[in-house]
Amino acid sequence: MKKIILPALFLITTCAYAQQSDESTIKLIFDKELTEGKSYSMLEYLTTSIGSRLSGSPGAAAAVEWSRHTLEGFSDQVILQPVMVPHWVRGQKEIGRIVNSRKMGTVEMNICALGGSVGTGTTGLVGNIVEVKSFDELKQMGSKNIQGKIVFFNRPMDPTKIGTFAAYGGAVDQRGSGASEAAKYGALGVIVRSMGLNLEDYPHTGGLRYAPNIPKIPAVAIATRHAEILSKLLKDDSNLQFYFETHCQTLEDAPSFNVIGELKGSEFPEEIIVVSGHLDSWDLAQGAHDDGAGCVQAIEVIRLFKIMGYKPKRTIRAVMYMNEENGLRGGIEYAKQAELKKEKHIAAIESDRGGFTPRGFTMTASEEVKNKIKSWKPLFEPYGLTDFNQSGGGADIGPLEPQGVPVIGFLPDSQRYFDHHHTPVDNFESVNKRELELGAASMAALVYLIDHYGLK
Amino acid sequence: MKKIILPALFLITTCAYAQQSDESTIKLIFDKELTEGKSYSMLEYLTTSIGSRLSGSPGAAAAVEWSRHTLEGFSDQVILQPVMVPHWVRGQKEIGRIVNSRKMGTVEMNICALGGSVGTGTTGLVGNIVEVKSFDELKQMGSKNIQGKIVFFNRPMDPTKIGTFAAYGGAVDQRGSGASEAAKYGALGVIVRSMGLNLEDYPHTGGLRYAPNIPKIPAVAIATRHAEILSKLLKDDSNLQFYFETHCQTLEDAPSFNVIGELKGSEFPEEIIVVSGHLDSWDLAQGAHDDGAGCVQAIEVIRLFKIMGYKPKRTIRAVMYMNEENGLRGGIEYAKQAELKKEKHIAAIESDRGGFTPRGFTMTASEEVKNKIKSWKPLFEPYGLTDFNQSGGGADIGPLEPQGVPVIGFLPDSQRYFDHHHTPVDNFESVNKRELELGAASMAALVYLIDHYGLK
Repeated sequence: MKKIILPALFLITTCAYAQQSDESTIKLIFDKELTEGKSYSMLEYLTTSIGSRLSGSPGAAAAVEWSRHTLEGFSDQVILQPVMVPHWVRGQKEIGRIVNSRKMGTVEMNICALGGSVGTGTTGLVGNIVEVKSFDELKQMGSKNIQGKIVFFNRPMDPTKIGTFAAYGGAVDQRGSGASEAAKYGALGVIVRSMGLNLEDYPHTGGLRYAPNIPKIPAVAIATRHAEILSKLLKDDSNLQFYFETHCQTLEDAPSFNVIGELKGSEFPEEIIVVSGHLDSWDLAQGAHDDGAGCVQAIEVIRLFKIMGYKPKRTIRAVMYMNEENGLRGGIEYAKQAELKKEKHIAAIESDRGGFTPRGFTMTASEEVKNKIKSWKPLFEPYGLTDFNQSGGGADIGPLEPQGVPVIGFLPDSQRYFDHHHTPVDNFESVNKRELELGAASMAALVYLIDHYGLK
Repeated sequence: MKKIILPALFLITTCAYAQQSDESTIKLIFDKELTEGKSYSMLEYLTTSIGSRLSGSPGAAAAVEWSRHTLEGFSDQVILQPVMVPHWVRGQKEIGRIVNSRKMGTVEMNICALGGSVGTGTTGLVGNIVEVKSFDELKQMGSKNIQGKIVFFNRPMDPTKIGTFAAYGGAVDQRGSGASEAAKYGALGVIVRSMGLNLEDYPHTGGLRYAPNIPKIPAVAIATRHAEILSKLLKDDSNLQFYFETHCQTLEDAPSFNVIGELKGSEFPEEIIVVSGHLDSWDLAQGAHDDGAGCVQAIEVIRLFKIMGYKPKRTIRAVMYMNEENGLRGGIEYAKQAELKKEKHIAAIESDRGGFTPRGFTMTASEEVKNKIKSWKPLFEPYGLTDFNQSGGGADIGPLEPQGVPVIGFLPDSQRYFDHHHTPVDNFESVNKRELELGAASMAALVYLIDHYGLK
């Protein structure tokens, strides 16, 4: 009997959704999420029971296992896609201090090593400080002023940028490339003002990239409040010396996985829609907004379809990428395998801007695809999503772009993101249940529309 | 010399703003607020140094004095407008417990008296519980089921409403009128599920209104989590008894003030634009979102004009209303005086929905006025304000409406508001600096446009 009844049920389900208007299907998605959503409880587990998940860490391995197990509850199949990832470890807590302030003597400063940095080891590093605001300024100073010193990059994020990601984009070169830029002129090490808009007591970590053929020098982030103090003391006393000690190191690459939960398409199974987040986080944080939120929202999309009895026409994949933070190996490997297997991805969506109130979607795609998605804007407006004009997708789905895959970023409100980003306060408590759920439902609604209508 | 120089300077200033485009003036407003804003530090003082500010309390008196002093720094004149306000006091902390659960024995429950409620006194009140979801259900049960019992109103806010104020509006009748509705059928007292969307351990207070000629019975709010427990236990055991003890009372009306800071108009001084918040808060809270945020944003509007050297054509009044929470006496008195003095208000704006990311403005006005304001929408879109379609103004400015004054509500994102509303977690820590500042700047931008162009 079972074999006869099941196809009949599927048929009824498919028909039911074919008959409903998009408005009512989308309302059902939001209603289900706001009344029976599991994104918040999933996030609680991922952030408070598992915690930080830097690539190669036990937390990352636990997160792989948790998402495999969780996705098995809602997917037709779960795939673990192997990928070797960088394995950087912080080691014991960093020390940072001004050693000879004329006014204040020894002053302890809150610092942390930047991800990927070499460590100073137990001997630490001590030197005079040269404060700069830009690479241009650094260049003008040249080796004669930089040689043997510690460069202090202190250009703040611009608070007048309304979208905080623009402010981040305007400052993060200091963190990403500051060490190598300074090393060109013989610097001993670098201190980078944390990427945060507020005056805070905790530093923000984040990745750096050493340029090839330039000495790798130790790099740390300093809490914004301490950056201000340091800058002020330097103005009075250019002979100020700074000591810092970091114990980080890069170990052998470690084996890890992207985790993929798949709902098989009923009509066009070869057409794949990716909805994703990244599973790894920085070691200092629970990784709640970055990017536990994106992961549970992506899982929630397929869970919602399952509990609604919605049978997609196309194949939906919830992808938990590994290693966005310090290597992007997961995103690169996923795209490589997609190309090797000649998979046809019709869209890739990522949520990696925090679990805040939805404002819209960003897109990098053909005009035709963008216009099709923009034509759905009236369906999203009742839920507060009005911004469909920005370009961009997401770091992990970026490697699919050269294959012609439209990449789409979930765009939540950005005001609070950089208060938490890469810090210990990127924790579960900082995520609002409704805001997270509205994001999950927004992504499910977009996946539903793409699944239903395609993007041609 | 001074007398000669000052008018000349004013002329230069006015000319400077006449020559600038609206886009650049509005950008200047936002830039100033995001770099030199004082709204956040003002809020810190109001909420952490002064704290709760229920009408008639020492906190309310301190807030009057603080806002008078603060406004004197930026205003041409500050007016204290006397108003007599209700003076309700909570007294010692409430006790609430289930006394005879078959499963759990005595169970302590987190409750608080509703504002304006009569107290039980030290003898407390004990009775069987009847749970209802609506006044209809109450009516159907009638006196035979209600007489001598405690009515437990347990209809939750509807989480599927995307705007949380709609969910609040759909549930708050239980808090506002539940006591008198239940008293009609001989209830001893009422317990009302707190107005919150989450399961929380703390109750939300808020005002009730006793209907005339119906016995006044004690009313309390219960934390949502405890409402769920109580409801569950009741299902197993309809003989469950509840004890509660409240020590609140209403004292003699107390003298207080609306505080008004005025910038005199240079061209049309008789045309008044009000920008406002309410100074009073519930006693359990610091009143950060409700409505410290609105107050400091309104003050900030005139402070911004002052530091920008913008000399308004029309008279701008930053009004700190007293007694929104439990009487609206300040709003009523302000409108009464405006009518008596034949003042010409061309618009009244209130911020009383929290210090969250701006989404738009609500309006109750003629079509002509609404269309004029909507025509400015493109100027606000770069700052994320896109919603100009909802009606409504604000409680305190409502009494101006019958005089034909267009009333406008600042509309921030609503998702987090009812996590804080009327509770101890409506505190300074829950307000994000940038979100607050964006709201202040949005209000200043709207006031600038109304001042510059009028509303005819």
